[in-house]
Amino acid sequence: MKKISPFAPIKQPILPEIKGIRLAAVNCGIRNKKRLDLMLAVFDSPANVAGIFTKSSMPGEPVVWCKKILPNGLARALIVNSGISNVFTGEQGSKTVSITASEVANIAGCNQEQVYISSTGVIGMQLNHELITKALPPLYKKLSPDAWIDAASAIMTTDTFPKVATRKAIIDKKEVTINGFAKGSGMIAPDMATMLGYIFTDAAISAKKLQELLSEAAKYSFNAITVDSDTSTSDTVLLFATGHIKTTEDDLADFKEKLQDLMLELAQMIAKDGEGASKFITVKVTGAEDERAARVIAMSIANSPLIKTAIAGEDPNWGRIVMAVGKTAERASRDDLKIYIGDELVAVNGVANPDYVEEKTAQYMKSRYINLSIDVGIGKGEFIAYTCDFTDNYIKINADYRS
Amino acid sequence: MKKISPFAPIKQPILPEIKGIRLAAVNCGIRNKKRLDLMLAVFDSPANVAGIFTKSSMPGEPVVWCKKILPNGLARALIVNSGISNVFTGEQGSKTVSITASEVANIAGCNQEQVYISSTGVIGMQLNHELITKALPPLYKKLSPDAWIDAASAIMTTDTFPKVATRKAIIDKKEVTINGFAKGSGMIAPDMATMLGYIFTDAAISAKKLQELLSEAAKYSFNAITVDSDTSTSDTVLLFATGHIKTTEDDLADFKEKLQDLMLELAQMIAKDGEGASKFITVKVTGAEDERAARVIAMSIANSPLIKTAIAGEDPNWGRIVMAVGKTAERASRDDLKIYIGDELVAVNGVANPDYVEEKTAQYMKSRYINLSIDVGIGKGEFIAYTCDFTDNYIKINADYRS
Repeated sequence: MKKISPFAPIKQPILPEIKGIRLAAVNCGIRNKKRLDLMLAVFDSPANVAGIFTKSSMPGEPVVWCKKILPNGLARALIVNSGISNVFTGEQGSKTVSITASEVANIAGCNQEQVYISSTGVIGMQLNHELITKALPPLYKKLSPDAWIDAASAIMTTDTFPKVATRKAIIDKKEVTINGFAKGSGMIAPDMATMLGYIFTDAAISAKKLQELLSEAAKYSFNAITVDSDTSTSDTVLLFATGHIKTTEDDLADFKEKLQDLMLELAQMIAKDGEGASKFITVKVTGAEDERAARVIAMSIANSPLIKTAIAGEDPNWGRIVMAVGKTAERASRDDLKIYIGDELVAVNGVANPDYVEEKTAQYMKSRYINLSIDVGIGKGEFIAYTCDFTDNYIKINADYRS
Repeated sequence: MKKISPFAPIKQPILPEIKGIRLAAVNCGIRNKKRLDLMLAVFDSPANVAGIFTKSSMPGEPVVWCKKILPNGLARALIVNSGISNVFTGEQGSKTVSITASEVANIAGCNQEQVYISSTGVIGMQLNHELITKALPPLYKKLSPDAWIDAASAIMTTDTFPKVATRKAIIDKKEVTINGFAKGSGMIAPDMATMLGYIFTDAAISAKKLQELLSEAAKYSFNAITVDSDTSTSDTVLLFATGHIKTTEDDLADFKEKLQDLMLELAQMIAKDGEGASKFITVKVTGAEDERAARVIAMSIANSPLIKTAIAGEDPNWGRIVMAVGKTAERASRDDLKIYIGDELVAVNGVANPDYVEEKTAQYMKSRYINLSIDVGIGKGEFIAYTCDFTDNYIKINADYRS
């Protein structure tokens, strides 16, 4: 029995309907019978779409497909399975994708280049497309405007809870909705995290503009988290806009803010549900040469097994933060470095802060939320990264994943 | 009670004396009374010396000191403590180093710029120099030509066994000796591994030539291992040549080979004694663009928590190797990639090898020694990296290190 993350929401939010979008999820037999493993979303009319994908040189077949059709900018359906990722599956894997696209296009009455596909799960195994195509008629029949949690559940792998979020934004004095769901728990590191994320809005925004908004927001959300420094072959985040609410692109400031907020919430949920995680860690780096340098340093800290295990052990072992700052090639001033754990200044002027009381910080380390702030004393670059601690449950989960 | 590594040698080799070198180790009170924590080596006459050090931007005070005196090229003493690393200790830490150098110089009757110093242990705590200086007279009295295992034991931190090695080499038809010892178990990643290594020979080799030999050999030994991707602030490897055997530099081929061999043995011992390690992993990458690219890919595999946990779980989860190859920015051909686990070809032509029998490889995964070979199908670049698996004992050791 899988241990549920201590960060799992006690109550899931209710996502409102978005006109023109219907969803459904079933078990199609890829995974054991007890859980959903296939979801379908259908857009009644073509939605504008933007996407970002893994930078892996070994991308899965669904990623190859989505990247190929994305320039068309239109989507009528999204189909996602969990259990098998259809990665490193060669020609047969590629065929699985085209057959799936064509069958979904048939049932949804659209062009197959409007069918977006993702798969997540074990790498290197063939995905039996018949399991998917046989499930399409019942899946299509089941479509409903409120199956968000089901859809979010069907894409889970080692996740311990479905990850959904919703926001309202104002464009042209009209209220639009943004709903999103995501999955990810291990093999999480930018660019991108091992994750799937799907975001939907009823606003009318062009594919080009959507892409701009998505890429910018991903920088500080999906690409600012890490669980284990391992980057997946299947990472995909898609943003769909149905245009059912007739808005212009004249002032998207509020939409942009709400989209970023929603994406950050989803990304943080992934770090919180990191395999075996017991604590959520925010690493804020300031004073770096530039934002890029700040990100490298923040990620070095967020990825350090020694820091993550110390936090799991509730040990305010700040010396390891010095180590992780030092190991990057980025400029940092040893004598101007400042390290805060929570609100406590623990290191300053090249030494332990003389006023630092370890007992107090040791108490702080018992919290579920740990904030580390590091000023490296060089410039004005800042970045915030999010991660989780590294417990023996990570080992247990990953030593047994396939068995 | 610490669990001893399954790779600990059943019997330690006996290191021969090297004329002109005497060593000793004591407990000086930095660590609990039960174990050695301070070692001294004295050269009866000045030895030529070469060194390589951590690339961390937060180096410890002893590293700063050694780098400063290294251009002189001469050594009369080496003093190393474990327990506290004297890193991030500011002016007081720097004073601790100069006092130590000056006191050792007094007792050894040499210039303080001939005194090499290392410290390993907790970062950010002040090292009480009185503990060291008070221990100098008994330490000096105890010096003997055969205290190699004691010296190797005194520099251990989370190591579970002392690491010593010895070789004979022929220069000018004369037999010379190379003895070495090292420590390292966690915070191990190049450049360099979190390690200390000291190598001694009675050959007559100039400091310049020693540096050349040391740097070259380190590339394929101390800088080819990783335990946890974390780079220390204190890494130091020093190579001393007393010149008691009058050799020329005309033909150092055999010496070079034996030195490389000895350094590889010590480096592999560090990976084998990786914190919590139950398996030793060799990652051979071929077919990369060049050696540099091969090294990046080999290290990506050797550092992947997902691969290391799968190996701990004896799961031949080769899909994660595909992931780790894909996540680097180096060129790799998905369709020409070949992955071998042991002698079994598991993946080829962009798919699982149709002849691959997982049961057989699952059996192989039960071995203590796991060989992974990956040809990335691009060019002729090769590199071999060494690491260990990632077990829940790593977490236990590192969650509690300071407590």
